Parts: sequence; structure tokens; C-alpha cells
Amino acid sequence: MDEDRLWADHEALARLTEPERPFTRRSFSPLFSEGRAWLERRFRDAGLETRIDAGGNLIGRLEGADADAGTLMTGSHSDTVPRGGRFDGISGVLAGIEVARCLSARGHRLRHGFEVVDFLAEEASDCGVSCVGSRAMTGHLDETLLAQIFPDGRSLAQALEAVGGDPGGLAGAVRHDIRAFLELHIEQGPVLESAGTAIGVVAAIVGIARVEIVFEGKAGHAGTVPMGGRRDALAAAAALVGWVKRSATEIARAAPGHFVATAGVLEVEPNAPNVVPASARLVIDARSDDRGRVGRFVESLRAEAEAAAARQGVRLAVCGLLSESLPVTCDGRLQRAIARAADGLGLSSMTMASGAGHDTSFLARICPAAMVFVPCRDGLSHHADEWAEPAALAAGSSVLLATVETLDDDGPETAA
Amino acid sequence: MDEDRLWADHEALARLTEPERPFTRRSFSPLFSEGRAWLERRFRDAGLETRIDAGGNLIGRLEGADADAGTLMTGSHSDTVPRGGRFDGISGVLAGIEVARCLSARGHRLRHGFEVVDFLAEEASDCGVSCVGSRAMTGHLDETLLAQIFPDGRSLAQALEAVGGDPGGLAGAVRHDIRAFLELHIEQGPVLESAGTAIGVVAAIVGIARVEIVFEGKAGHAGTVPMGGRRDALAAAAALVGWVKRSATEIARAAPGHFVATAGVLEVEPNAPNVVPASARLVIDARSDDRGRVGRFVESLRAEAEAAAARQGVRLAVCGLLSESLPVTCDGRLQRAIARAADGLGLSSMTMASGAGHDTSFLARICPAAMVFVPCRDGLSHHADEWAEPAALAAGSSVLLATVETLDDDGPETAA
Repeated sequence: MDEDRLWADHEALARLTEPERPFTRRSFSPLFSEGRAWLERRFRDAGLETRIDAGGNLIGRLEGADADAGTLMTGSHSDTVPRGGRFDGISGVLAGIEVARCLSARGHRLRHGFEVVDFLAEEASDCGVSCVGSRAMTGHLDETLLAQIFPDGRSLAQALEAVGGDPGGLAGAVRHDIRAFLELHIEQGPVLESAGTAIGVVAAIVGIARVEIVFEGKAGHAGTVPMGGRRDALAAAAALVGWVKRSATEIARAAPGHFVATAGVLEVEPNAPNVVPASARLVIDARSDDRGRVGRFVESLRAEAEAAAARQGVRLAVCGLLSESLPVTCDGRLQRAIARAADGLGLSSMTMASGAGHDTSFLARICPAAMVFVPCRDGLSHHADEWAEPAALAAGSSVLLATVETLDDDGPETAA
Repeated sequence: MDEDRLWADHEALARLTEPERPFTRRSFSPLFSEGRAWLERRFRDAGLETRIDAGGNLIGRLEGADADAGTLMTGSHSDTVPRGGRFDGISGVLAGIEVARCLSARGHRLRHGFEVVDFLAEEASDCGVSCVGSRAMTGHLDETLLAQIFPDGRSLAQALEAVGGDPGGLAGAVRHDIRAFLELHIEQGPVLESAGTAIGVVAAIVGIARVEIVFEGKAGHAGTVPMGGRRDALAAAAALVGWVKRSATEIARAAPGHFVATAGVLEVEPNAPNVVPASARLVIDARSDDRGRVGRFVESLRAEAEAAAARQGVRLAVCGLLSESLPVTCDGRLQRAIARAADGLGLSSMTMASGAGHDTSFLARICPAAMVFVPCRDGLSHHADEWAEPAALAAGSSVLLATVETLDDDGPETAA
């Protein structure tokens, strides 16, 4: 495990950013293709045979000694959100390359094939679809998604073709040979750093419910409508924002496990100083590794929204799910293998939930899957100041390598 | 007083609107000039001699019998907000024309000169300046305001010149001969309609304080930052919105007189479902006919904003006045003359404050000034559905005519 080499790769890829808004390398952009070309060279330098699958994933493979043993896969994504960071996704791809270099350098083959993947467009792309590559690899990239349109008028199908995928041949991208999937990722939260723990063993990826709420009141002149005669949509929305924070804090405290809820979007119409707000739109995001907790929260949210509307004399015009994903449980055997690998390397570890979605959420539908988290500074992510220490990245990569070796020895079907 | 003729004028001017967004006739636009040309013809048909003064006001005059008696003036404005109504401002100009027609038809002169004014750009114009004409007539249109820029790059000075004003000769627009100014206007609130009262005698025009508040928290991933570790700017802003509504309702209840406060603007950054809000900007508008009540409210608002910031662990980055205007007291003698005129016509009247600003606010700085309010439907204004009954407008115009006659008889300096 060469910490400097791994860090140099991070620095090289960080240079491929839109100069005015670091660090931006949006999926399907020319910069993204430049990053892909750079990655493909690094894949080959690491001894990997490279290809782009029908789902537009860049895959590098080391053949195994046993052609029937199947594949151990690791990877993440090299695309970023606008003004993102240098680590989210990227570190998982680069750690995979570093593991491949270590495996190649040893000179003897694993029993299993070993693959490193740069999944296409994990972050929501400019056509609105996220996890394009991992959806494709698991049979979840359907016609509706392929028909989504980019601002330049292209469909996702056309954009996929332009990066080397094959929208007509997606069945060929679906894998049946993966015996284990591992994804290294920065935590994107403050838990590991606060606890002083080197490695997070992800037990579950949260399910996410997004609820849209629109209150409709009545516009009125801010000077002439008496306080008692107002139907102020913002007053109702503000009350609900306060309830979300208080209620989510209580729910999170009441039991172990992961629960968060956020009012991140609030839009007011007409949003003028001299007009009593006519309408207010909220989007509430609730996440937990426990589906029941999210469900109960959404029920209470609905009741509270109705009560807030009634108190302010406004109408609850919209209260519905924008999207809902179920929690994903990571494979128990893989979790134990990661924890043992950390222990063997003298690294502290803890079991935790991932509050963010990942390509692993899709991979877990077709094979045993788990994640290795490494600490990041101040919990910051999707931000130019996103930061992980070189030593932390190298430690995570060492755990990844040791886990792959253990899984290769154990055989995928053996209980640990 | 011819109700049908007055209503036909309202209908004629309503037709001069941007067709896609009724009723829009923005100051300085070609439509505005078209409206002005129509008004000028109606002024002349009513026997008025017309001119545009240096401040861009369209003025029509009936000379008086006594050249030294000074002028009795009435008027309002013909410009609208975007998607405004058919009555706000317009009714005051058309009532003035109807009064002039009645005076001309009688065949004998008033002792005073009588003028009807269409003030230029009462509503905030596209360069941001409001009450352009009434500022000019009272010596309050300064170089800073004249230098404000429209979206098309023109300065207010250039725009003023284009509608017939004279930015270099503004001193000539300032009047010293006005013995009384009266403005008829729709109430723009629900008070007269609710009370079943025909005429509002405006005792004061509220003072307005606009306070800008910005909370700065810390952006964070909505899935990964635990509830206890958040610095959520929107949570602080929402708490303040709730406080403004509750506090203003209590203040309004605690004593007679006018008090309202409104959180009409709330902007969240980055306003994304998956990001804990980093910043939230509020604009709070507080109005009263009592300067002390506004001052005490703003003090409490500041303290409450600090407390809300502290509770949410965010920073109160901005808390300051965007603008402040003082309440204007209407002339007592004119108020009594209006009330007596209503009484003489068998119309009910009540004394009230105006919660909105008007050209009268400026005129009151140079002469005795007062306003006649007429009811409007449902308190609605600045809206395509703004509505006043033809009979209500005619009643208000009759009160205006009778008040002018009384003032002309009394002489301006005589105490009533």
C-alpha cells in the first residue's frame, strides 16, 4: 500500500475540474471523459484489463486463477456534484486501483477475478437520474429513465451511448458473477472523526423519504390586511420547519440507529416584502436505517402539516411523497470480514449506518455488498473544502485489500 | 356626479394593459404613455388646461376666480405594479377628472385654482424608485435617485425626460401654492367592507420599517450530519417567522391604532432537499401610525433574532434596517371636512389609518393633505381581481367634490 502514490492520484484527478468552480467534473461532460481517459490509463498501469460495459461503467479486471470462482468487485464513482469535493466517490475508485496495483505487484493471482469499477453518474446527472451505472449493472435502468432529457436536449440513452455505453444492449450489463462487492467511501459525516475511529463498517444504507408540502394561503397587502385577517402560507410552513427539527431530534434521541430529517427547501410566493405570502413549498427529507421510523415520521408530518394549515387558516394543497427508497442492509459476512481486516491491521473500527445513498445500494440487490468508511474533516462533503487525510485513505485501502484477500481465501459461500 | 361616466373611464383605462398579464401599465413604458395620452384628452374634455411638470406629473388645471387664493389639488397615479388592478391609483385620477367635469358643468368658477394630477410612477418603478412625481413636486427627488438605472441601462433622469419631465429643472416642479391636497384611493384592505362603511377618512399613513435578517449556519449533508450536530440557518429563520406573526398579533391587539408586521421574504441557500440549510435571509416589514410601536417592535425583533441564532448555533450575520419611513399625519381640518361631506351626502364614514404608502405621504410635507378611502372587495389589491363597485367609486367622488366645495368656501386658512 503506497500512501504517496494513492495521494498523487487524488491530486491528479482533482486537477481535472471546471476551473471557476472547483471541484466539478459532471457526468457526461468533456471533463468527465478526460477523467475517464486518465483513469483508464491508471487502470492499465495497475495491470487491469479495461472495458466500458453497456451501462457506461469503466471496468478494470484482473483475471482469477479459477475461471468458475466468480468476481470480487470494488469501486465507486469519479463524477461529482457541482462544486463538489476531491474525495466523494473518487477515493473509492482510486483505492480500488491501489489494491489492484498491490495485487498485481505480488505476482500471484487471486482465485477470483478482481474488478475495479468507476460507476457512471452516481450523483444526480443533469437529466435528473442518479446511479446510472449501478442501476444498469443490476438491471434497474429502465426505458423511463433512459428517456430523461438533459438541458441540451439529449436523452439519457443518447448521452450513455456517447460515453461508450450501449442503451440497446443493457441486458448484457447485468452481472451474475459477482460474489462480493465492496465500496470504500469517505463518511461524509462527522461520526468517525468525532469518535477518533479509523474505519467505519457500514451495516446499512438509510432509506430516504422525500415529502413535498405546499401551503396555499392568500396574498394580501402587508400594510393593509390586519393581523387577525391573514391567511399566511409562510407562517404555516415556518411552524412545520420548527416541528421537523424538534421532532427529528426527539426521534433520533429515543433509540439507537440512524434517524435524521431535514427541511432543506423552502420557497415562498410571491416572496415580496410588502405581500403576505400566498404560498410556501417545503421539501422534507427523512432518513433511517429503519423503514418503520421513516414511515411513522411521515405519518406524523402529514398530521402536523394539516394542523399547521388549520391554525393559520391556509390550505394544505400538496402533501405527498416525491420519492421513497428502502433501507439497504449490508451483508453480515462482509461486515465481519472488514472489521477483522481492520483489527488485523491495528485499526479501530465501528459499525455505523450510511446516511447517504451509494452505488452499493444497487449492488446489494444482486450480490453480498458492504462499505468501508474513512473519516473526513468536519463531516464536510459536496463542498470544495471536503477533506480526507492521506493516511486515512491509505488505511481504508489497506482494509479493502485485506478484506479482498480474506474473501478470496474463504471462498464466497463459506460462512465466516 | 355621473356614475356611468366614471365607470366607463375605468373600463377604458383598464383596456390599456399588457394583454398577457392584466392589469399591467408600468411607469415609463409605451403603454403608460398611451394611458397618459388618453388621460390628457379626458383632462381637456373636462375643461382642464394640461401640462407635464418638470417632475413628469400630468397636471390639469381649472383657473380660480381669485388669482391669489392658491390651489386645491387632487390626484393619484395611473401606473400599476406588474399584474396589478384597475383601481389602485387609477380611481383617484379618474375621480379627480369627474369632479372637474362637475365643476366645469356648473359654469361658475371656484375661488381657488383646482388641479387634478396624475403623479408619475407612484409604484416602485423598474429602476427601484417609487413616488417619482410626488417626490419631485415636494423637492425630494435628488441626484442619487435620478441616477438609478433601469434594466435597459437608462437612468431615471433619462426616463423622466422621455415622458416630458425636466430633470435639470426640478426646482420648478416644487409647489408653494397648494392650499389643500386630497387623494381618493381604494382602501386596499378589508376594514371598510367588513364594517359596511362607505367612506374611510384617513387620519394617518403608516410609517414602515423594513428589517433584513440573515442567519448563517453551516451546510451539511442531510443524511449524514446527526440532528444534534446541525447549525441549521432555516431552523433559526423559521422560529423568527413564527415570532413575528405571534408578536405582531399581540401588539395589534394590545392597543387601538394600526400595527402590522409581515415576514414576506424568506430565501434559503442552497435550498436543496439533501443539504442542511447554510443560510437564510428574511425581510420583515413592520408598519404603524405610531412611530414608537414600530421602534419597540424592531428592538424586540433584534433581540429575538439573536436568541434564535443562539438556540440553533448559527450566526446572526445581518440584522439591519433596509429602509424606514415615518408615519404621516393627515391634516385635521381636511379630515373633518371629508367626514362632514360624507355626512351631508348621507354616507357612513370612519376614521382609519392607511397601511400602504401613497403620494399623499409626500404632499403632506408641503401642504395640508388627507385621503378619502372607498371600500374594495375582499381587501384585495395589487391583483387582477382587485375590485371596487361603481357606486362606491361614485360615492367617494361625490365626497371629494363636496369637500373641494367646502374648502373653497371656507378658505384655506379658516379653522373649521
